[in-house]
Amino acid sequence: MQPPDLLKRYEDIRRTSVALAEPLSPEDCAAQSMPDASPVKWHLAHTSWFFETFVLAKAAPGYAPFDASYRFLFNSYYNSVGGQYTRSERGLLTRPDLETVLAFRRHVDGHVLACLKRGLDEELASVCELGLQHEQQHQELLLTDVKHLLGRNPAFPAYRPAPDAPSVRAEPLRWHSFPGGLEWIGYDGDGFCFDNERPRHRVFLADYQLASRPVTRGEYLEFVLDGGYERAGLWLSEGWSRVRESGWRHPLYWHERDGEWFEATLGGLRELDPDAPVCHVSHYEADAYARWAGARLPTEAEWETAAAKLSPEGNFAESGLLHPRGAGTPADAPGQMFGDVWEWTSSAYGAYPGFRPLSGGLGEYNGKFMSGQMVLRGGSCATPVSHIRPSYRNFFYPPDRWQFSGIRLALDG
Amino acid sequence: MQPPDLLKRYEDIRRTSVALAEPLSPEDCAAQSMPDASPVKWHLAHTSWFFETFVLAKAAPGYAPFDASYRFLFNSYYNSVGGQYTRSERGLLTRPDLETVLAFRRHVDGHVLACLKRGLDEELASVCELGLQHEQQHQELLLTDVKHLLGRNPAFPAYRPAPDAPSVRAEPLRWHSFPGGLEWIGYDGDGFCFDNERPRHRVFLADYQLASRPVTRGEYLEFVLDGGYERAGLWLSEGWSRVRESGWRHPLYWHERDGEWFEATLGGLRELDPDAPVCHVSHYEADAYARWAGARLPTEAEWETAAAKLSPEGNFAESGLLHPRGAGTPADAPGQMFGDVWEWTSSAYGAYPGFRPLSGGLGEYNGKFMSGQMVLRGGSCATPVSHIRPSYRNFFYPPDRWQFSGIRLALDG
Amino acid sequence: MQPPDLLKRYEDIRRTSVALAEPLSPEDCAAQSMPDASPVKWHLAHTSWFFETFVLAKAAPGYAPFDASYRFLFNSYYNSVGGQYTRSERGLLTRPDLETVLAFRRHVDGHVLACLKRGLDEELASVCELGLQHEQQHQELLLTDVKHLLGRNPAFPAYRPAPDAPSVRAEPLRWHSFPGGLEWIGYDGDGFCFDNERPRHRVFLADYQLASRPVTRGEYLEFVLDGGYERAGLWLSEGWSRVRESGWRHPLYWHERDGEWFEATLGGLRELDPDAPVCHVSHYEADAYARWAGARLPTEAEWETAAAKLSPEGNFAESGLLHPRGAGTPADAPGQMFGDVWEWTSSAYGAYPGFRPLSGGLGEYNGKFMSGQMVLRGGSCATPVSHIRPSYRNFFYPPDRWQFSGIRLALDG
Amino acid sequence: MQPPDLLKRYEDIRRTSVALAEPLSPEDCAAQSMPDASPVKWHLAHTSWFFETFVLAKAAPGYAPFDASYRFLFNSYYNSVGGQYTRSERGLLTRPDLETVLAFRRHVDGHVLACLKRGLDEELASVCELGLQHEQQHQELLLTDVKHLLGRNPAFPAYRPAPDAPSVRAEPLRWHSFPGGLEWIGYDGDGFCFDNERPRHRVFLADYQLASRPVTRGEYLEFVLDGGYERAGLWLSEGWSRVRESGWRHPLYWHERDGEWFEATLGGLRELDPDAPVCHVSHYEADAYARWAGARLPTEAEWETAAAKLSPEGNFAESGLLHPRGAGTPADAPGQMFGDVWEWTSSAYGAYPGFRPLSGGLGEYNGKFMSGQMVLRGGSCATPVSHIRPSYRNFFYPPDRWQFSGIRLALDG
Repeated sequence: MQPPDLLKRYEDIRRTSVALAEPLSPEDCAAQSMPDASPVKWHLAHTSWFFETFVLAKAAPGYAPFDASYRFLFNSYYNSVGGQYTRSERGLLTRPDLETVLAFRRHVDGHVLACLKRGLDEELASVCELGLQHEQQHQELLLTDVKHLLGRNPAFPAYRPAPDAPSVRAEPLRWHSFPGGLEWIGYDGDGFCFDNERPRHRVFLADYQLASRPVTRGEYLEFVLDGGYERAGLWLSEGWSRVRESGWRHPLYWHERDGEWFEATLGGLRELDPDAPVCHVSHYEADAYARWAGARLPTEAEWETAAAKLSPEGNFAESGLLHPRGAGTPADAPGQMFGDVWEWTSSAYGAYPGFRPLSGGLGEYNGKFMSGQMVLRGGSCATPVSHIRPSYRNFFYPPDRWQFSGIRLALDG
Repeated sequence: MQPPDLLKRYEDIRRTSVALAEPLSPEDCAAQSMPDASPVKWHLAHTSWFFETFVLAKAAPGYAPFDASYRFLFNSYYNSVGGQYTRSERGLLTRPDLETVLAFRRHVDGHVLACLKRGLDEELASVCELGLQHEQQHQELLLTDVKHLLGRNPAFPAYRPAPDAPSVRAEPLRWHSFPGGLEWIGYDGDGFCFDNERPRHRVFLADYQLASRPVTRGEYLEFVLDGGYERAGLWLSEGWSRVRESGWRHPLYWHERDGEWFEATLGGLRELDPDAPVCHVSHYEADAYARWAGARLPTEAEWETAAAKLSPEGNFAESGLLHPRGAGTPADAPGQMFGDVWEWTSSAYGAYPGFRPLSGGLGEYNGKFMSGQMVLRGGSCATPVSHIRPSYRNFFYPPDRWQFSGIRLALDG
Repeated sequence: MQPPDLLKRYEDIRRTSVALAEPLSPEDCAAQSMPDASPVKWHLAHTSWFFETFVLAKAAPGYAPFDASYRFLFNSYYNSVGGQYTRSERGLLTRPDLETVLAFRRHVDGHVLACLKRGLDEELASVCELGLQHEQQHQELLLTDVKHLLGRNPAFPAYRPAPDAPSVRAEPLRWHSFPGGLEWIGYDGDGFCFDNERPRHRVFLADYQLASRPVTRGEYLEFVLDGGYERAGLWLSEGWSRVRESGWRHPLYWHERDGEWFEATLGGLRELDPDAPVCHVSHYEADAYARWAGARLPTEAEWETAAAKLSPEGNFAESGLLHPRGAGTPADAPGQMFGDVWEWTSSAYGAYPGFRPLSGGLGEYNGKFMSGQMVLRGGSCATPVSHIRPSYRNFFYPPDRWQFSGIRLALDG
Repeated sequence: MQPPDLLKRYEDIRRTSVALAEPLSPEDCAAQSMPDASPVKWHLAHTSWFFETFVLAKAAPGYAPFDASYRFLFNSYYNSVGGQYTRSERGLLTRPDLETVLAFRRHVDGHVLACLKRGLDEELASVCELGLQHEQQHQELLLTDVKHLLGRNPAFPAYRPAPDAPSVRAEPLRWHSFPGGLEWIGYDGDGFCFDNERPRHRVFLADYQLASRPVTRGEYLEFVLDGGYERAGLWLSEGWSRVRESGWRHPLYWHERDGEWFEATLGGLRELDPDAPVCHVSHYEADAYARWAGARLPTEAEWETAAAKLSPEGNFAESGLLHPRGAGTPADAPGQMFGDVWEWTSSAYGAYPGFRPLSGGLGEYNGKFMSGQMVLRGGSCATPVSHIRPSYRNFFYPPDRWQFSGIRLALDG
């Protein structure tokens, strides 16, 4: 049985994706700035491909695909569905153009909405829900990918003007203590969650502490100015190799001009806000900063245990800022656990004990990436608020920097 | 003193460039399919940058650049002018968008036309002429680059519908004999030529023969079917390495489907025309084919001596075909020496004895590329007819295949 | 206070390293077959550098280094000690030659033995012990590196003739059940352990099962013949990419000739022994095999809990086989947990809760590699038996195959 | 009919190769410092493979190869003979060891000498002569390759002590004029020459001048200190790219320490001799230096015409210096045209008009490399004097620097 609000959520979420592309020209929507990023147009098409492939093919008998070649062109990585267009060349697909992709979306929307009006059985409704969660993930990627594209343009054009929302001055960092013991983590509600959040299971934690807020740009700048990028002893071996190979001297998007520091944002080039959480750092940088600060990164179990009682509120995509902001912190719990910046943990992304991937092609959604990546928690200023949960596990490779990824410090008990 | 027709030629040539972009969407004009190719939009901007930098800066005192950042963004390789945006990332410049680049063109055109109406001194008139020749070169590159982009799209979209112009059946290849002796090559007229065509000088040639027409697709297909790409002994060592590394089995843009051969053209995917000259072969392939055929490639001096008495007529860009075509061949001279396909020679591109590059920044135009490249002669179906001369020297690297490059066979006397 | 047997152990272990090089020519000892491997000669020198740098510099006042340039040449990765010769070019160090390196060893041995006879304080004695453990690690690497070198020689020369030691026929695989609950892992004895085995701490385990023996070559061959290397759905995404890029079709050192299977061993090329544990598989292959078999890899906590009561006995380096061998399995516990092959776990290599690296330069020994690698357990046929413990954590990158790395299957309880 | 001195020359030249390896350890003879260089041991084996493959296989019926696997292992690039061991991995062939390779040489020598004593027919005698010329080429490569290997060792070990042979102070550079006209180049004697020196043919030259001696180290240092490596305008486009990618700041083997200049030589690290000809420069550097000096490089026809009347005398391998040396220059002709340093010309390496490669497998000797390389003339201090002729054409790629390659300047008439 289809949940009552699925139709409305479908309309809202699909509309939001199109709205995100509106400030952009057809050229902006077509370019790909690195293999890890995709063109905006590709995000718009791929999310529609998802519904066509996994929902309409079953829910709408006799459904004729909008264009048979899209099955190949807009498949991301589902080997069980078939071959895929070369990932690093998505920016060469000048055809179909943006208008055609938008027509593809309308075509898919018409058919899915018809299905939703008729009503989907439970299995298909849950695939449709997965499609919406998937689309929300791509909304965030669309923003981080277009930030990367515009951030490589020497003129640093703005994606759209940023609303005026001044930071609150960052309070000195405090520590919150958490007693160790046997804890449950993983999702156990009756709403949506990804397969990688299950099964809920017990973990044993030693006593630990979490910082009252994420590390700020101002604090991170001290690390930079203290020679943080020149001291091998602060870094993991892989991280140090990367620093030297890539010439990293500071987070992605930072620019120093005559001793003043700026950063490229979705609102254009701005002065660095010292009170806002630092972001666009790799796991290596987060780890090195923590070592420099005499602390460490939290495990994902520590993070989730601390976050479990908090509700996901904060600076999410809906604020329209699309940028982290300094905020006041509550006295009784770590602040800014949700929104603003994803928080790197010290946990490698892997299967929970007893993990079972989804069946069929969708089994490729999460499980096959459980190698080489690190878990991030809490969502960012580019994440839709309805998309996040305390048990939500995001994952990226240690050197990745183009997400809104920041740092929460932890200490042993 | 400015030549009388310079103003009219300026208007015609500049208009032609814009017209070439008209069949294309903004996305088509922005993408870059490989480092050697440039986006259409970049060609349109760079050719305007040329006039702004080398003509307006001197001819129009007080001239304000359309946008100061373009000096950097649209400089191709002129180190003496300043730094350059990374060549391989031209496809990331989604801003300025196509409209803005067209406005840049109109801005430059207005100022140049005003100068031309006032009259330019001889030196600046000759720089302006060079700018027009430069623009014609980029018209050809615009076409070959967009062919490459569309040719990598799995749907093989057409740049524009091709006119109906059937090939004439290729006659059997005959040989034309040329007696050896001391010959003059290089330009000695009073029209325009590039610095690399001078000075006119003497060369000694042994007796030689040239084929009556370029090698056809049908003939080249025989080489393919005879295992030409699997026999090391036919190839230069570098060529054989490249064949194995790149997996070459036939010319660029050819596709075999169930034993039938097709090729991607600017008019979309078509059946291979066996009577038309083969093109999109590298120097390595041209050389290997010649060895297989018991012949060799001509030197540029042999080619020019044979072409010197012929006038440049043939299938050039103005025909609108944008594709080589089989044609009848005259009895008394090699046919299709001009147009259809550039003909690889066996001559490495280098300085003529006594060569002097242009002075100033324009000295970087030709001279600094005199290493590692091979000379091609005669122009192609994408070359403007007014751009070509018997003494014209084009040059590309031996593995390059995305130009309309074909094969003329030669024999010792 | 120096432990009573330290002097004797020093003499034994140092002598063993030299003995391992004896079957080899100077050329064999000098070559480097890939950046991950080091020349035998380099292993002999680096292990001596370790004593010179970390023991003699403090324990022998006025000690004159054998050659001042060795501080740089034979430093592996200790940034706090100074710069390092380029790792991938160790094979270019034809000087110092083997004789000189052996003289360096004797020089160092003379001085260390003098110190040991005088007696070292507790701290230096523990550094000396670490140096011996370090040397044992390099003994194993020396063997795996020379296996790699000789295994790339088309003649597959033997390192030394292998003793005659036939396999026992592998019994059908059975499962041993382990009840879940709160368990302690990590070292808590009073002997030597590495910093990464501490602190001992509690983990919560769900019920699980372990296979009665490692996966055999015969079983793995079934996976190969069943198209295991052609079915994307069996692989982690990174693993599948690697399979395609590297053309993997079977474990390292396997060779198929006319339907018969052989493998290159330290005793030369031999027929594949179907009863012996499979080895030289990457983590990706171990994971894919487990998925194909309907099982999974164990976590390191599961492995250690099961191994904690067993004593490290089995086919270690001292057997002289230098090759895994099929063996009978006990009824009441998993067999071959120690020796034969290292067993890949599903655990990413990371810090135990409360981990503290060693102080000073030796802090770089283990901690800085806690990123991107996976834990292996149990030792191999190339590990000295005195070097292993149930809590011992080895670690390599997921694609690494040149160690004696094999597969132990696990199941949820 | 076999020339009378062939047997003696065989003995001398084969003995010389072995003598060149005598100062070296087995390790020195086995290592490969870059893909372009080969191990000394490989040179010793490959030159014997040549005689086994091209002489003994025909001249000694029933000849049993020393080891059948050598046909593959020591084939350099003769596809018509069969496959080849990977070029870049020659340093991994620790077996066969040096002793075995020397035994291979003795085996081959015994059989070839027996043939020579019986007498070879004209065709086989000429192949045998080619084998000796080939061996002399590898003697030079052996020296330049071992120089490269030892030059990468931080200790700069000497290949052997250099004899004491002080330079003569370099006289100021003068110019020698040569009148233009129709000249003959290419070999026309009745001795040995390579196929690429034929056929002798006419070329037309304009008036030109050649420098009285090669450019010295002192003169080249002025170019370095004048910012030669920082001024794009002095360089070919490819050369400038290479300078930036490779970080070139001076010739290979130069080292600056506190303002003093040294160079690694086959006799170890020495102070730079300002009077000796500069060497170990690429074609790009030679070309840039010439531009800086207001001159150009000669064509190979200009060089040969000037050299044709001179006899090859100078500082060749037989002097034992293995290093260029400043020398007095004659008044009436350019000095040091032979020996000391190979002189880069401005001529791309290609076929002479009417060129015919040798028949059979030996046709791969020279012809297939006629792409992408530049001609050098005159021999070097590592070339055997009996190996050189005015018509001799050596060829390397423009970025190559590990040969004794230097600069002779030229001017237009």
